[in-house]
Amino acid sequence: MRKLLLLSCVGVGALLVNGAASANEELAKMSKNPKDWVMPAGNYYGQRFTELKQITPSNVKSLVPAWTFSTGVLRGHEGAPLVIGDTMYFSTPFPNNVYALDLAHDAKIKWVYKPTQDPSVIPVMCCDTVNRGVSYGDGKIFLHQADTTLVALDADSGKVVWSVKDGDPSKGQTGTSAPFVIKDKVFIGVSGGEFGVRAWVSAYNLKDGSLAWRGYSEGPDSDTLIDPQNTTALGKPVGEDSSIKTWEGDQWKIGGGATWGWITYDADLNLIYYGSGNPSTWNPHQRPGDNKWSMTIWARDVDTGKAKWVYQMTPHDEWDYDGINEMILSDQGGKKLLTHFDRNGFGYTLDRTNGDLLVAEKYDPAVNWATKVDMDKSSPTYGRPLVVAKYSTDQNGPDVNTQGVCPAALGSKDEQPAAYSPLTKLFYVPTNHVCMDYEPFRVSYTAGQPYVGATLSMYPPPGETNMGNFIAWNGTKGKIVWSDPEQFSVWSGALATASGLVFYGTLEGYLKAVDAKSGKELWKFKTPSGIIGNVMAYEHDGKEYVAILSGVGGWAGIGLAAGLTKPTDGLGAVGGYAALSNYTALGGQLTVFALPSE
Amino acid sequence: MRKLLLLSCVGVGALLVNGAASANEELAKMSKNPKDWVMPAGNYYGQRFTELKQITPSNVKSLVPAWTFSTGVLRGHEGAPLVIGDTMYFSTPFPNNVYALDLAHDAKIKWVYKPTQDPSVIPVMCCDTVNRGVSYGDGKIFLHQADTTLVALDADSGKVVWSVKDGDPSKGQTGTSAPFVIKDKVFIGVSGGEFGVRAWVSAYNLKDGSLAWRGYSEGPDSDTLIDPQNTTALGKPVGEDSSIKTWEGDQWKIGGGATWGWITYDADLNLIYYGSGNPSTWNPHQRPGDNKWSMTIWARDVDTGKAKWVYQMTPHDEWDYDGINEMILSDQGGKKLLTHFDRNGFGYTLDRTNGDLLVAEKYDPAVNWATKVDMDKSSPTYGRPLVVAKYSTDQNGPDVNTQGVCPAALGSKDEQPAAYSPLTKLFYVPTNHVCMDYEPFRVSYTAGQPYVGATLSMYPPPGETNMGNFIAWNGTKGKIVWSDPEQFSVWSGALATASGLVFYGTLEGYLKAVDAKSGKELWKFKTPSGIIGNVMAYEHDGKEYVAILSGVGGWAGIGLAAGLTKPTDGLGAVGGYAALSNYTALGGQLTVFALPSE
Repeated sequence: MRKLLLLSCVGVGALLVNGAASANEELAKMSKNPKDWVMPAGNYYGQRFTELKQITPSNVKSLVPAWTFSTGVLRGHEGAPLVIGDTMYFSTPFPNNVYALDLAHDAKIKWVYKPTQDPSVIPVMCCDTVNRGVSYGDGKIFLHQADTTLVALDADSGKVVWSVKDGDPSKGQTGTSAPFVIKDKVFIGVSGGEFGVRAWVSAYNLKDGSLAWRGYSEGPDSDTLIDPQNTTALGKPVGEDSSIKTWEGDQWKIGGGATWGWITYDADLNLIYYGSGNPSTWNPHQRPGDNKWSMTIWARDVDTGKAKWVYQMTPHDEWDYDGINEMILSDQGGKKLLTHFDRNGFGYTLDRTNGDLLVAEKYDPAVNWATKVDMDKSSPTYGRPLVVAKYSTDQNGPDVNTQGVCPAALGSKDEQPAAYSPLTKLFYVPTNHVCMDYEPFRVSYTAGQPYVGATLSMYPPPGETNMGNFIAWNGTKGKIVWSDPEQFSVWSGALATASGLVFYGTLEGYLKAVDAKSGKELWKFKTPSGIIGNVMAYEHDGKEYVAILSGVGGWAGIGLAAGLTKPTDGLGAVGGYAALSNYTALGGQLTVFALPSE
Repeated sequence: MRKLLLLSCVGVGALLVNGAASANEELAKMSKNPKDWVMPAGNYYGQRFTELKQITPSNVKSLVPAWTFSTGVLRGHEGAPLVIGDTMYFSTPFPNNVYALDLAHDAKIKWVYKPTQDPSVIPVMCCDTVNRGVSYGDGKIFLHQADTTLVALDADSGKVVWSVKDGDPSKGQTGTSAPFVIKDKVFIGVSGGEFGVRAWVSAYNLKDGSLAWRGYSEGPDSDTLIDPQNTTALGKPVGEDSSIKTWEGDQWKIGGGATWGWITYDADLNLIYYGSGNPSTWNPHQRPGDNKWSMTIWARDVDTGKAKWVYQMTPHDEWDYDGINEMILSDQGGKKLLTHFDRNGFGYTLDRTNGDLLVAEKYDPAVNWATKVDMDKSSPTYGRPLVVAKYSTDQNGPDVNTQGVCPAALGSKDEQPAAYSPLTKLFYVPTNHVCMDYEPFRVSYTAGQPYVGATLSMYPPPGETNMGNFIAWNGTKGKIVWSDPEQFSVWSGALATASGLVFYGTLEGYLKAVDAKSGKELWKFKTPSGIIGNVMAYEHDGKEYVAILSGVGGWAGIGLAAGLTKPTDGLGAVGGYAALSNYTALGGQLTVFALPSE
């Protein structure tokens, strides 16, 4: 029945394509106005770059808070505000309140939307009750609630225009990602890789919330929207039922491949890009095979969802190197590139037109689980990581503690998005510098219950103390240009500016500005709580502002956020980041910075 | 049995007096160092005045946040931090965590004390889960928990040195006040005026937490520590059992007179000063008599607790004009004065040596429940307010809605403390400008249950929109010198500086600086949440800092704090302050301001 409905919806979606081009044009145009910040990453390419340049390397030392706002909610604040004209919009962690602040009237509250959600969703959220922000399109603000409800709010009044339930928390399906508005549709993914979901991306029609298409990460081609002949992987057609062939029995039905990261878009190619996550249970031994298409970069047609190409970064994941991190699009040297910093520690650059693999290099020197990604096109392992046996948790087997694997499960980078400057042609990447011990064990699947099956400990690489670096990365060469060590993982999204600055936040709560060319720290300010939000910039009344949400939490901060103290709790993060409690406490605040008036 | 214990403890306390003068001398000396802020009001006189003068009327416009810190707790943040050398100390609302921040290391957390308290105390706290701060003495930090536990923490390590339970939340007794350290003792009062407590002030010995003395607000002389011959009221001995004679039957046993305000101290006179609150139920009809010594200014001997003098401001309260507001001591014109801004709307100045009434004038022009305080010494009603019959909720009777009474129950000023500048000789007073309808009804007493018996609505005075004023007051003349209107009640404690500035916070979240002479607004900054905390100042590494806790709540903000929406909830405050939700949301943040470095 559901399949029939889906097919039917795809048909409806296709009919609407032409009629709703206006929403796309409006948003595309708005995203080119640097005064606004109309989508989570600032633009469709996911570059988190602002053309504003009032704040410069030479005056940034004078930057000060202009105003502040408490969100009224504690725990991890991911995401960033949007600014459209006189209004700033942002969402909070569960219960996912949405605020509209009136910038023309001293940030007075224009409206607030407070959804009613069953709190039973909270324990189903693996890594804090986060929400990665709202999106705008067609006069509406879109919220993706923890309980997977997608809500369209009237941008002026905050009134609900429509809402639709995308998933089912009782099956471990939850919502944490920002929605993405492209053309006449709004896209959301699903969280629940640790609960045995089979994940998907849904495309809803902006106008009325009807489902346009849904593409699964695993399953038959009709579900994955893969065309066996025309969908390619590394240049070759994937063939029939490329997903289910790589699973034992029907394990694909609980195959994970969560889709809670970011979506980017190339209008010329009419493609969206995103990553799918880990193949559910962290005990690799009990799910033989490549587990396609978990851990995969997806390029899908916006209108139909049809997969144009796929690239699986970590076949048969053995470390939870959840591939959901963002795909940053850039045009360099006449090429349409896609750059992705995977949890597995490799920085990939692909030709985004066809998925050709151009570069795959370690962006953290600590990475040891694989020697390299095989770049020899004639090799049978072309495009695959060459796994080091001693760090293979599958080869070592369940109930064996595989020690010293780098990176840790939370990756050399997690969801915290990198920035790209078209001026320096460098990527600015918040990274983790963390290793782990990993002991998988057999686990049974029960709907809605954790389906993890591994015990972890996390710690800095041997002989080192810094658990993070903020780096500049050359995506065409696959080289670190500079690297600023940080005591803790950098769990904040970065912002690059046309004036040659890069901003990022730290888990202790500092917002920092560094020189884009050298990485030299030029300024910092201690915000109320640890930062896992993403920096954004806007202009209002002729003045440039930089804004950040503070509120420690997320996976790295789960000990603080959920009050956990056992070192192996939080899948090892509690012990790994225990020292964080010496620096910051729970919060939920927006701090907006500007240069002094005089 | 308890009485025996009490007498025995008093004996022990008396023995210790000489031995522990050192603690007093240390603290008295420390309070004279303007770099530190060693007690809740800055000094024993409760003046909230700083000698620091780096920040001036001419440069305050450049004041900016230097650093911020989230307390990790939402709801109303009353009180202010202490600063002693390199360490800042403060407490949060329930669960009453105490933080020690290392100012020499970028406000890194030195220690945090997190008490375990039964959350069943929360519904027993009438007007939010507030805590008014910690105190220092004898190398210890003292915390008065919601559950009435007084804890002495080692100031260096945060380890518990001793703790003692002062009351019993199951009987409606709770702790919200700051402890006060004077000589060898630490003093605390009790909350619960709306739960039929019979309140007291306890004096515990600093060294070991043993009880030195306890003085009740009502009861036989042995409980009130009143000496019938030597304790005076308006110059005359009060006579035997002056309290219980003014109650019907044994109603004094549930007679309220809560003591959750502030304590000040005159070392020369060896007296402490504080106010007692409303006589429990808000239905005056069911408790005939003057209800002594509720609504009273108390002067007690520090060492023995013996009452030197008393002055009852509102005999037989009919409006909840809870008399707990602070007693600010000043020396003017060769006189030892005590100035008190009562909830009932009168600003009193007394001779603090003997309790002589010098001035009693309205400090809010809206006050209408009494024409004046009778100042005619020959009159039988000398010292009493002359009640206007139409606003007498007792004369109108129960189940009648007495309308248009000004001020409202939360008074022309609540606990938010005023400041005094010895330079301008003016008091700077955060005030409410709010009226009410008040309908008393019969209520039965059950231990631990609300014992209120009145339905209230609150609103600004007819024809006006501002619900607050921040005023300058001449205490010897009983005159308003200037008055700055505010949209909402000013629920923050003020700070006066030697440079001629006065700081205060607003319920919308602004911290403001005004000129001490003219009241002209010179600067403001929007902090994360509404301010009900008290401003303080300190110097570190040669730089002056001004700090404030944000976190909307308290009685005025109870709708936001407790999520109440019915207008008559929160004893009428929910409807009265409904518009507050257009400006701010719950928070819990410290913001520390300084002038820019360059």
